Amino acid sequence: MNDDRKRRSRGGREARRAVRQKVKLEQFPNIIRNVPITNVLSDEGLEIIEFNAEDILQEVGVDFKDDEEALQMWRDAGADVNGVRVRIPKGLAREIAKTAPPNFKQVARNPDRSVDIGGKNTVFAPVYGPPFVRDLDGGRRYATMKDFENFVKLAYLSPAMHHSGGTVCEPVDLPVNKRHFDMVYAHIKYSDKPFMGSVTAPERAQDTIEMAKILFGSDFLEKNTVLTSLINANSPMTWDGTMLGALKAYSRANQAVMTSPFILAGAMSPVTVAGTLTQTLAEALAGIAFSQLCRKGAPVIFGSFASSISMQSGSPTFGTPEPALVLFGCAQLARRLNVPFRSGGSLCGSKLPDAQAAYESANTLWPTIMSGVNFVLHAAGWLEGGLVSSYEKFVMDADQLAMMQTFLKGIDLSENGQAMAAIKEVGPGAHFLGCNHTQENFETAFYRSGIADNGTFEQWQAEGSRNTEIRSAETVKSLLSSYEQPPLDPAIDEELRDFINRRKKSFPDSNT
Amino acid sequence: MNDDRKRRSRGGREARRAVRQKVKLEQFPNIIRNVPITNVLSDEGLEIIEFNAEDILQEVGVDFKDDEEALQMWRDAGADVNGVRVRIPKGLAREIAKTAPPNFKQVARNPDRSVDIGGKNTVFAPVYGPPFVRDLDGGRRYATMKDFENFVKLAYLSPAMHHSGGTVCEPVDLPVNKRHFDMVYAHIKYSDKPFMGSVTAPERAQDTIEMAKILFGSDFLEKNTVLTSLINANSPMTWDGTMLGALKAYSRANQAVMTSPFILAGAMSPVTVAGTLTQTLAEALAGIAFSQLCRKGAPVIFGSFASSISMQSGSPTFGTPEPALVLFGCAQLARRLNVPFRSGGSLCGSKLPDAQAAYESANTLWPTIMSGVNFVLHAAGWLEGGLVSSYEKFVMDADQLAMMQTFLKGIDLSENGQAMAAIKEVGPGAHFLGCNHTQENFETAFYRSGIADNGTFEQWQAEGSRNTEIRSAETVKSLLSSYEQPPLDPAIDEELRDFINRRKKSFPDSNT
Repeated sequence: MNDDRKRRSRGGREARRAVRQKVKLEQFPNIIRNVPITNVLSDEGLEIIEFNAEDILQEVGVDFKDDEEALQMWRDAGADVNGVRVRIPKGLAREIAKTAPPNFKQVARNPDRSVDIGGKNTVFAPVYGPPFVRDLDGGRRYATMKDFENFVKLAYLSPAMHHSGGTVCEPVDLPVNKRHFDMVYAHIKYSDKPFMGSVTAPERAQDTIEMAKILFGSDFLEKNTVLTSLINANSPMTWDGTMLGALKAYSRANQAVMTSPFILAGAMSPVTVAGTLTQTLAEALAGIAFSQLCRKGAPVIFGSFASSISMQSGSPTFGTPEPALVLFGCAQLARRLNVPFRSGGSLCGSKLPDAQAAYESANTLWPTIMSGVNFVLHAAGWLEGGLVSSYEKFVMDADQLAMMQTFLKGIDLSENGQAMAAIKEVGPGAHFLGCNHTQENFETAFYRSGIADNGTFEQWQAEGSRNTEIRSAETVKSLLSSYEQPPLDPAIDEELRDFINRRKKSFPDSNT
Repeated sequence: MNDDRKRRSRGGREARRAVRQKVKLEQFPNIIRNVPITNVLSDEGLEIIEFNAEDILQEVGVDFKDDEEALQMWRDAGADVNGVRVRIPKGLAREIAKTAPPNFKQVARNPDRSVDIGGKNTVFAPVYGPPFVRDLDGGRRYATMKDFENFVKLAYLSPAMHHSGGTVCEPVDLPVNKRHFDMVYAHIKYSDKPFMGSVTAPERAQDTIEMAKILFGSDFLEKNTVLTSLINANSPMTWDGTMLGALKAYSRANQAVMTSPFILAGAMSPVTVAGTLTQTLAEALAGIAFSQLCRKGAPVIFGSFASSISMQSGSPTFGTPEPALVLFGCAQLARRLNVPFRSGGSLCGSKLPDAQAAYESANTLWPTIMSGVNFVLHAAGWLEGGLVSSYEKFVMDADQLAMMQTFLKGIDLSENGQAMAAIKEVGPGAHFLGCNHTQENFETAFYRSGIADNGTFEQWQAEGSRNTEIRSAETVKSLLSSYEQPPLDPAIDEELRDFINRRKKSFPDSNT
């Protein structure tokens, strides 16, 4: 196998060279942040939250369900275990979490697409999890594997999308216990950006790791992180056996997990921001520490998904002020833990990619950007509270992400940026359109949206009075028809397909 | 007249008491900011911009056109005047500007609606200037006085709108040289929030002041600011006679002006953020200093309207990253000048209140909020690059403003906010819906949007699959039908109408 790997590895490198030479795809580099992070909580406020979270861990505890091994690991680490309840003495979880790296690189099969997660970096990844898709022509319908592939392609084609994501939609046309093979394969085949692994069962996590080994080589995986996967808590304060099993598989293989309390405040946490922060920190501390019990130094991300519910109907709401404050506060708590932070995105509750969707998405994305989130899941395509992956919204959001990346570059204070010669050349009452400085900076001067219509009313009317959704539907079609697959070493491709076929044949289909 | 005034004044107070007793209108108090301001430029960066702006003022200069008196005032102040060009020695404008107050109160006829402008305060005011209106039923059409009154009413009915604004749309059914009477009267009659004065000719500014004197009394005006008016520069670096005439009238009457460079970067300023900041500062410094030459201590706001143009078509663009950076930078420059700052709003280029409109508006409003803008003109209703006042977008934006006001309250760290009892009561694996803490905080827990649809897909479908624009049109109708006029002392009303009739008869109609 090692010899095989070497041969294929060379093929892989050649293929990668070919990609770089052939595809003229626009792709932004990773984000370089020159805009300061905004903190909403004082150190005193943060200390209150941290004190309270430790109190919760010690006095109330966290349930680790359906995983005897996990309970034993906690006993060995010094926690008080009673049934599935793990009470963690004050300071212990934070102490154990200290071996988690402050940042790490997730390697992509195209090394130019590898991402740094942590520190001042921000990585954008697509929507995760919806069972439905929506587009203008087909309306709202159950997602299929074809849709999954399309969203992987759209992410690949989006310059400010740094990551291919994971379950960009649920391909419900495939059996539940086997669709992970097709999903992971689609990320590998149709994109060369980094991707996420399956977490719906420990053996599916293991399958993902095996496929990553075929792609990168076993030795490479031992020393490098090539997968980042989503481990959700069952809030309040419960980690279940499925997620723990996936977490153990990934952490022990030195692959990254984001341990994410998924909270609709008011139902799964208190109705206050500070209470939600406290509970999120307690849950995240337990998850992060557990990853370090699995393997010291394994990369782990402090995750937080927090929204609120309508106190009238119980429906989840998005883009409201309280989750924005949770987001800012959580980012500060994660920085004090010195681990990367995942949250935010372009969340909304709207049924359509209309004004509500856009306001709510921006109301999540701006706090995401200003609070310095490191890994932004759901950065594009999220609709209807996460039930729907929207084609049109994906390209709208991707346009917004590119603007955010431009914004984060900050203000250019070079001599060219200062533009004193231009002001002196033009003088009062004239215009800058023809001056030398404008001509020289014409190409790169301002961000150009591919979605916004900035023409005159008359021109817009003559073109059919199309709203943003209709124009975006055209963008989707044009992008997908322009898609070209990034070359993949045929030997690797064959080995991946062999592995998938063999595994698929080894157990019967099931929808659980 | 003094006796008359006293009688009416008592009537006014009684009327105001009646308002407070009768109307159960929801109105938020002024914003209390507990979220820190974000700065994007370092002190070193700011010093570069300031140095450059002083260099521009001294070496290039600013044109003060069609106003011999202004030129003489500058000569007397020590500037180098050549034709209409005023070259201001380095440091002089900043020195003269020192008498401008760091903050001031604009008094409303309902004292509960008075606003503090400057410092940590943020005041929201409606869209200003569009010749067109749009609503779902009537489409896009020229604005009329009826529309003007409707927008004043909508602003009055919006809890997070602190100000009635000025030209909420241009009533083009009235003669240009007389419509200011009707506009100012509409603000006084249909709202009790503070408002803006006419600036389209010096005598129209004077008419506004006379009407304010009828409303508040001459003596009161001498010591209090009851008008804040918009004085735009003709960028680059030109102040014209019309605006200077209005500025002189207001400043000499101790009424506030916002001297605002109106810049589409790339056409009216360099294509860079730093260059646009430099030019904006130079223009604003000249305007602010000139207000202080008119009257030391007169309230004046550092205004900035900055967007960019499409380098392909020359069309203005909104919600892009570069104007956001200008906004952050300008806010810092204004704070260093120690004067209030006006900028931002809910700007967009979209023709419809759709996703583009919402993304772009949020992309302006978030920087507005995070940079600490003191006076936010165009906070609601702006559509199509400012050509259109949109009824539906007004109520959508007003909902966003209410969310921003909630956001700015920051995180409640009281015992109730910390919610430790709730977390301990509920424990792992349960839910918070029925716990005591949730019941106690039910009413005030989370912001409730009147525009967003958060129900299930099925419910939304059953209700007609209405998008945000359609739902907002219903909100507009329901608000306008619920409107009740805040009582106005009949004696003041009569005197205002007498004044208007007398003035209107004293000169012929004209459309210039």
